[in-house]
Amino acid sequence: MIGIVIVAHTPVASAMLGFAEHTFGTVPERLRAVDIPPYEDTKVSFDRVMKAAYGVNTGLGVLILTDVMGATPANVASKLESLGPLSGLNAPVIVLAGLNLPMLMRCISHRGENLEELAQKALAGGQHGILRLGAKAPSEKIE
Amino acid sequence: MIGIVIVAHTPVASAMLGFAEHTFGTVPERLRAVDIPPYEDTKVSFDRVMKAAYGVNTGLGVLILTDVMGATPANVASKLESLGPLSGLNAPVIVLAGLNLPMLMRCISHRGENLEELAQKALAGGQHGILRLGAKAPSEKIE
Repeated sequence: MIGIVIVAHTPVASAMLGFAEHTFGTVPERLRAVDIPPYEDTKVSFDRVMKAAYGVNTGLGVLILTDVMGATPANVASKLESLGPLSGLNAPVIVLAGLNLPMLMRCISHRGENLEELAQKALAGGQHGILRLGAKAPSEKIE
Repeated sequence: MIGIVIVAHTPVASAMLGFAEHTFGTVPERLRAVDIPPYEDTKVSFDRVMKAAYGVNTGLGVLILTDVMGATPANVASKLESLGPLSGLNAPVIVLAGLNLPMLMRCISHRGENLEELAQKALAGGQHGILRLGAKAPSEKIE
Protein backbone atom coordinates (compact mmCIF):
# COMPACT_ATOMS: atom_id res chain seq x y z
CA MET A 1 0.00 0.00 0.00
CA ILE A 2 1.25 3.48 -0.94
CA GLY A 3 1.56 5.89 1.98
CA ILE A 4 -0.09 9.29 1.63
CA VAL A 5 0.83 12.51 3.42
CA ILE A 6 -1.23 15.67 3.08
CA VAL A 7 0.90 18.79 3.55
CA ALA A 8 -0.88 22.14 3.48
CA HIS A 9 -1.29 25.49 5.16
CA THR A 10 -2.84 25.30 8.63
CA PRO A 11 -5.60 24.12 9.00
CA VAL A 12 -6.25 22.85 5.47
CA ALA A 13 -4.36 19.55 5.79
CA SER A 14 -6.17 18.42 8.92
CA ALA A 15 -9.49 19.60 7.45
CA MET A 16 -8.91 17.36 4.42
CA LEU A 17 -8.03 14.48 6.73
CA GLY A 18 -11.20 15.17 8.70
CA PHE A 19 -13.20 14.88 5.51
CA ALA A 20 -11.60 11.50 4.76
CA GLU A 21 -12.29 10.34 8.30
CA HIS A 22 -15.92 11.31 8.00
CA THR A 23 -16.31 9.79 4.55
CA PHE A 24 -14.68 6.45 5.37
CA GLY A 25 -15.80 6.25 8.99
CA THR A 26 -12.21 6.22 10.24
CA VAL A 27 -8.89 7.75 9.22
CA PRO A 28 -7.70 5.54 6.35
CA GLU A 29 -4.60 3.47 7.07
CA ARG A 30 -1.25 5.10 6.31
CA LEU A 31 -2.72 8.51 5.66
CA ARG A 32 -1.42 11.48 7.63
CA ALA A 33 -1.84 15.24 7.56
CA VAL A 34 0.80 17.84 8.34
CA ASP A 35 -0.48 21.38 8.83
CA ILE A 36 2.16 24.01 8.20
CA PRO A 37 1.53 27.06 10.40
CA PRO A 38 2.64 30.52 9.28
CA TYR A 39 6.15 31.48 10.28
CA GLU A 40 7.20 27.97 11.32
CA ASP A 41 10.91 27.41 10.75
CA THR A 42 11.14 25.47 7.48
CA LYS A 43 13.59 23.03 9.07
CA VAL A 44 10.95 22.17 11.65
CA SER A 45 8.31 21.82 8.93
CA PHE A 46 10.65 19.62 6.92
CA ASP A 47 11.29 17.36 9.91
CA ARG A 48 7.58 16.97 10.53
CA VAL A 49 6.91 16.09 6.89
CA MET A 50 9.81 13.63 6.92
CA LYS A 51 8.50 11.93 10.07
CA ALA A 52 5.02 11.64 8.58
CA ALA A 53 6.49 10.12 5.39
CA TYR A 54 8.42 7.61 7.48
CA GLY A 55 5.26 6.80 9.39
CA VAL A 56 3.20 5.92 6.33
CA ASN A 57 5.92 4.28 4.25
CA THR A 58 5.74 0.54 3.61
CA GLY A 59 8.64 0.65 1.16
CA LEU A 60 6.36 0.95 -1.87
CA GLY A 61 6.49 4.73 -1.96
CA VAL A 62 4.93 7.85 -0.55
CA LEU A 63 2.60 10.25 -2.32
CA ILE A 64 2.62 13.76 -0.87
CA LEU A 65 -0.41 15.91 -1.61
CA THR A 66 0.17 19.65 -1.18
CA ASP A 67 -2.13 22.62 -1.52
CA VAL A 68 -0.46 25.08 -3.88
CA MET A 69 2.77 25.17 -5.84
CA GLY A 70 5.35 27.71 -4.74
CA ALA A 71 4.24 27.99 -1.13
CA THR A 72 6.03 26.59 1.90
CA PRO A 73 4.12 23.31 2.24
CA ALA A 74 4.84 22.37 -1.38
CA ASN A 75 8.42 23.56 -1.12
CA VAL A 76 9.10 21.51 1.98
CA ALA A 77 7.60 18.41 0.37
CA SER A 78 9.62 18.99 -2.82
CA LYS A 79 12.75 19.17 -0.73
CA LEU A 80 12.06 15.68 0.61
CA GLU A 81 11.48 14.36 -2.90
CA SER A 82 14.63 16.02 -4.24
CA LEU A 83 16.77 14.32 -1.60
CA GLY A 84 16.16 10.98 -3.29
CA PRO A 85 18.05 8.17 -1.56
CA LEU A 86 19.60 10.70 0.82
CA SER A 87 16.28 11.00 2.63
CA GLY A 88 16.85 7.52 4.04
CA LEU A 89 13.25 6.68 3.23
CA ASN A 90 14.24 3.81 0.92
CA ALA A 91 11.17 4.42 -1.18
CA PRO A 92 10.23 6.75 -4.03
CA VAL A 93 8.39 9.98 -3.29
CA ILE A 94 6.08 11.90 -5.61
CA VAL A 95 4.73 15.34 -4.75
CA LEU A 96 1.53 16.73 -6.25
CA ALA A 97 0.10 20.23 -5.85
CA GLY A 98 -3.45 21.53 -6.12
CA LEU A 99 -5.04 19.07 -3.73
CA ASN A 100 -8.82 19.01 -3.75
CA LEU A 101 -11.25 16.50 -2.31
CA PRO A 102 -11.79 14.64 -5.61
CA MET A 103 -8.02 14.07 -5.78
CA LEU A 104 -7.90 12.85 -2.20
CA MET A 105 -10.81 10.47 -2.68
CA ARG A 106 -9.25 9.07 -5.83
CA CYS A 107 -5.98 8.49 -3.99
CA ILE A 108 -7.59 6.64 -1.14
CA SER A 109 -9.45 4.39 -3.55
CA HIS A 110 -6.40 3.40 -5.62
CA ARG A 111 -3.70 2.80 -3.06
CA GLY A 112 -3.05 -0.76 -4.15
CA GLU A 113 -1.52 0.47 -7.39
CA ASN A 114 2.09 1.46 -7.79
CA LEU A 115 3.20 4.97 -6.96
CA GLU A 116 3.44 6.23 -10.54
CA GLU A 117 0.00 4.93 -11.44
CA LEU A 118 -1.50 6.32 -8.27
CA ALA A 119 -0.01 9.74 -8.97
CA GLN A 120 -1.44 9.77 -12.49
CA LYS A 121 -4.88 8.74 -11.23
CA ALA A 122 -4.71 11.41 -8.53
CA LEU A 123 -3.88 14.14 -11.04
CA ALA A 124 -6.68 13.04 -13.37
CA GLY A 125 -9.16 12.69 -10.52
CA GLY A 126 -8.37 16.15 -9.24
CA GLN A 127 -8.63 17.78 -12.65
CA HIS A 128 -11.83 16.00 -13.65
CA GLY A 129 -13.35 16.96 -10.32
CA ILE A 130 -13.07 20.64 -11.21
CA LEU A 131 -16.18 21.55 -13.10
CA ARG A 132 -19.14 23.82 -13.33
CA LEU A 133 -22.35 22.39 -11.94
CA GLY A 134 -25.42 23.16 -13.95
CA ALA A 135 -29.00 23.25 -12.87
CA LYS A 136 -29.14 19.63 -13.99
CA ALA A 137 -26.28 18.50 -11.77
CA PRO A 138 -27.10 15.64 -9.42
CA SER A 139 -28.97 17.10 -6.50
CA GLU A 140 -30.69 15.84 -3.43
CA LYS A 141 -34.29 16.67 -3.06
CA ILE A 142 -34.70 19.71 -0.86
CA GLU A 143 -38.34 20.49 -0.28
CA MET B 1 -17.46 42.99 -7.26
CA ILE B 2 -18.57 39.37 -7.51
CA GLY B 3 -19.50 37.76 -4.20
CA ILE B 4 -17.91 34.41 -3.36
CA VAL B 5 -19.24 31.72 -1.04
CA ILE B 6 -17.22 28.62 -0.16
CA VAL B 7 -19.48 25.68 0.66
CA ALA B 8 -17.80 22.47 1.78
CA HIS B 9 -17.80 19.66 4.29
CA THR B 10 -16.94 20.76 7.83
CA PRO B 11 -14.27 22.06 8.40
CA VAL B 12 -12.92 22.41 4.86
CA ALA B 13 -14.75 25.63 3.97
CA SER B 14 -13.55 27.55 7.01
CA ALA B 15 -10.04 26.12 6.55
CA MET B 16 -9.98 27.51 3.01
CA LEU B 17 -11.21 30.86 4.30
CA GLY B 18 -8.49 30.77 6.95
CA PHE B 19 -5.91 30.30 4.23
CA ALA B 20 -7.25 33.34 2.37
CA GLU B 21 -7.24 35.37 5.57
CA HIS B 22 -3.62 34.45 6.22
CA THR B 23 -2.55 35.07 2.63
CA PHE B 24 -4.21 38.45 2.26
CA GLY B 25 -3.81 39.59 5.87
CA THR B 26 -7.57 39.83 6.35
CA VAL B 27 -10.66 38.04 5.13
CA PRO B 28 -11.23 39.42 1.62
CA GLU B 29 -14.36 41.51 1.19
CA ARG B 30 -17.54 39.66 0.25
CA LEU B 31 -16.07 36.23 0.76
CA ARG B 32 -17.79 33.83 3.13
CA ALA B 33 -17.47 30.19 4.10
CA VAL B 34 -20.27 27.80 4.98
CA ASP B 35 -19.19 24.53 6.58
CA ILE B 36 -21.73 21.77 6.14
CA PRO B 37 -21.61 19.37 9.10
CA PRO B 38 -22.56 15.72 8.70
CA TYR B 39 -26.23 14.95 9.21
CA GLU B 40 -27.37 18.59 9.12
CA ASP B 41 -30.87 18.90 7.72
CA THR B 42 -30.43 19.95 4.09
CA LYS B 43 -33.09 22.64 4.54
CA VAL B 44 -30.96 24.19 7.25
CA SER B 45 -27.85 23.92 5.09
CA PHE B 46 -29.70 25.49 2.20
CA ASP B 47 -30.85 28.41 4.35
CA ARG B 48 -27.32 29.04 5.54
CA VAL B 49 -25.93 28.99 1.98
CA MET B 50 -28.72 31.30 0.84
CA LYS B 51 -28.00 33.76 3.66
CA ALA B 52 -24.30 33.75 2.83
CA ALA B 53 -25.10 34.39 -0.85
CA TYR B 54 -27.33 37.30 0.13
CA GLY B 55 -24.57 38.63 2.35
CA VAL B 56 -21.94 38.77 -0.38
CA ASN B 57 -24.18 39.77 -3.29
CA THR B 58 -23.79 43.22 -4.79
CA GLY B 59 -26.16 42.43 -7.64
CA LEU B 60 -23.36 41.43 -10.01
CA GLY B 61 -23.54 37.77 -9.18
CA VAL B 62 -22.37 35.13 -6.74
CA LEU B 63 -19.81 32.42 -7.39
CA ILE B 64 -20.19 29.39 -5.12
CA LEU B 65 -17.15 27.20 -4.72
CA THR B 66 -17.87 23.67 -3.48
CA ASP B 67 -15.62 20.77 -2.62
CA VAL B 68 -16.88 17.76 -4.54
CA MET B 69 -19.68 17.10 -7.00
CA GLY B 70 -22.49 14.86 -5.83
CA ALA B 71 -22.09 15.52 -2.11
CA THR B 72 -24.40 17.58 0.06
CA PRO B 73 -22.49 20.90 -0.07
CA ALA B 74 -22.49 20.88 -3.88
CA ASN B 75 -26.08 19.70 -4.02
CA VAL B 76 -27.29 22.45 -1.72
CA ALA B 77 -25.44 25.08 -3.74
CA SER B 78 -26.82 23.68 -7.00
CA LYS B 79 -30.29 23.94 -5.58
CA LEU B 80 -29.79 27.67 -5.05
CA GLU B 81 -28.52 28.08 -8.60
CA SER B 82 -31.39 26.06 -10.07
CA LEU B 83 -33.95 28.31 -8.39
CA GLY B 84 -32.95 31.13 -10.71
CA PRO B 85 -35.06 34.24 -10.15
CA LEU B 86 -37.11 32.35 -7.54
CA SER B 87 -34.20 32.61 -5.11
CA GLY B 88 -34.93 36.31 -4.75
CA LEU B 89 -31.23 37.01 -5.06
CA ASN B 90 -31.70 39.19 -8.14
CA ALA B 91 -28.30 38.14 -9.40
CA PRO B 92 -26.89 35.20 -11.34
CA VAL B 93 -25.32 32.30 -9.47
CA ILE B 94 -22.65 29.92 -10.75
CA VAL B 95 -21.56 26.84 -8.82
CA LEU B 96 -18.17 25.19 -9.27
CA ALA B 97 -16.93 21.95 -7.75
CA GLY B 98 -13.43 20.70 -6.99
CA LEU B 99 -12.27 23.72 -5.03
CA ASN B 100 -8.55 23.86 -4.35
CA LEU B 101 -6.37 26.72 -3.16
CA PRO B 102 -5.18 27.71 -6.64
CA MET B 103 -8.83 28.12 -7.68
CA LEU B 104 -9.60 30.19 -4.60
CA MET B 105 -6.59 32.44 -5.10
CA ARG B 106 -7.50 32.96 -8.74
CA CYS B 107 -11.04 33.89 -7.77
CA ILE B 108 -9.95 36.44 -5.23
CA SER B 109 -7.60 38.06 -7.72
CA HIS B 110 -10.17 38.44 -10.52
CA ARG B 111 -13.29 39.59 -8.77
CA GLY B 112 -13.61 42.75 -10.82
CA GLU B 113 -14.55 40.70 -13.87
CA ASN B 114 -18.04 39.56 -14.68
CA LEU B 115 -19.38 36.34 -13.23
CA GLU B 116 -18.96 34.21 -16.35
CA GLU B 117 -15.37 35.34 -16.87
CA LEU B 118 -14.55 34.82 -13.22
CA ALA B 119 -15.97 31.30 -13.31
CA GLN B 120 -13.88 30.43 -16.38
CA LYS B 121 -10.73 31.81 -14.78
CA ALA B 122 -11.47 29.91 -11.57
CA LEU B 123 -11.88 26.62 -13.43
CA ALA B 124 -8.67 27.16 -15.38
CA GLY B 125 -6.76 28.28 -12.30
CA GLY B 126 -7.87 25.24 -10.35
CA GLN B 127 -7.00 22.81 -13.13
CA HIS B 128 -3.63 24.37 -13.92
CA GLY B 129 -2.80 24.32 -10.22
CA ILE B 130 -3.01 20.52 -10.19
CA LEU B 131 0.39 19.24 -11.17
CA ARG B 132 3.29 17.05 -10.25
CA LEU B 133 6.18 18.87 -8.66
CA GLY B 134 9.58 17.68 -9.80
CA ALA B 135 12.89 17.95 -8.03
CA LYS B 136 13.37 21.16 -9.97
CA ALA B 137 10.18 22.76 -8.70
CA PRO B 138 10.60 26.12 -7.00
CA SER B 139 11.85 25.48 -3.51
CA GLU B 140 12.98 27.48 -0.56
CA LYS B 141 16.44 26.86 0.69
CA ILE B 142 16.35 24.49 3.61
CA GLU B 143 19.83 23.97 5.03
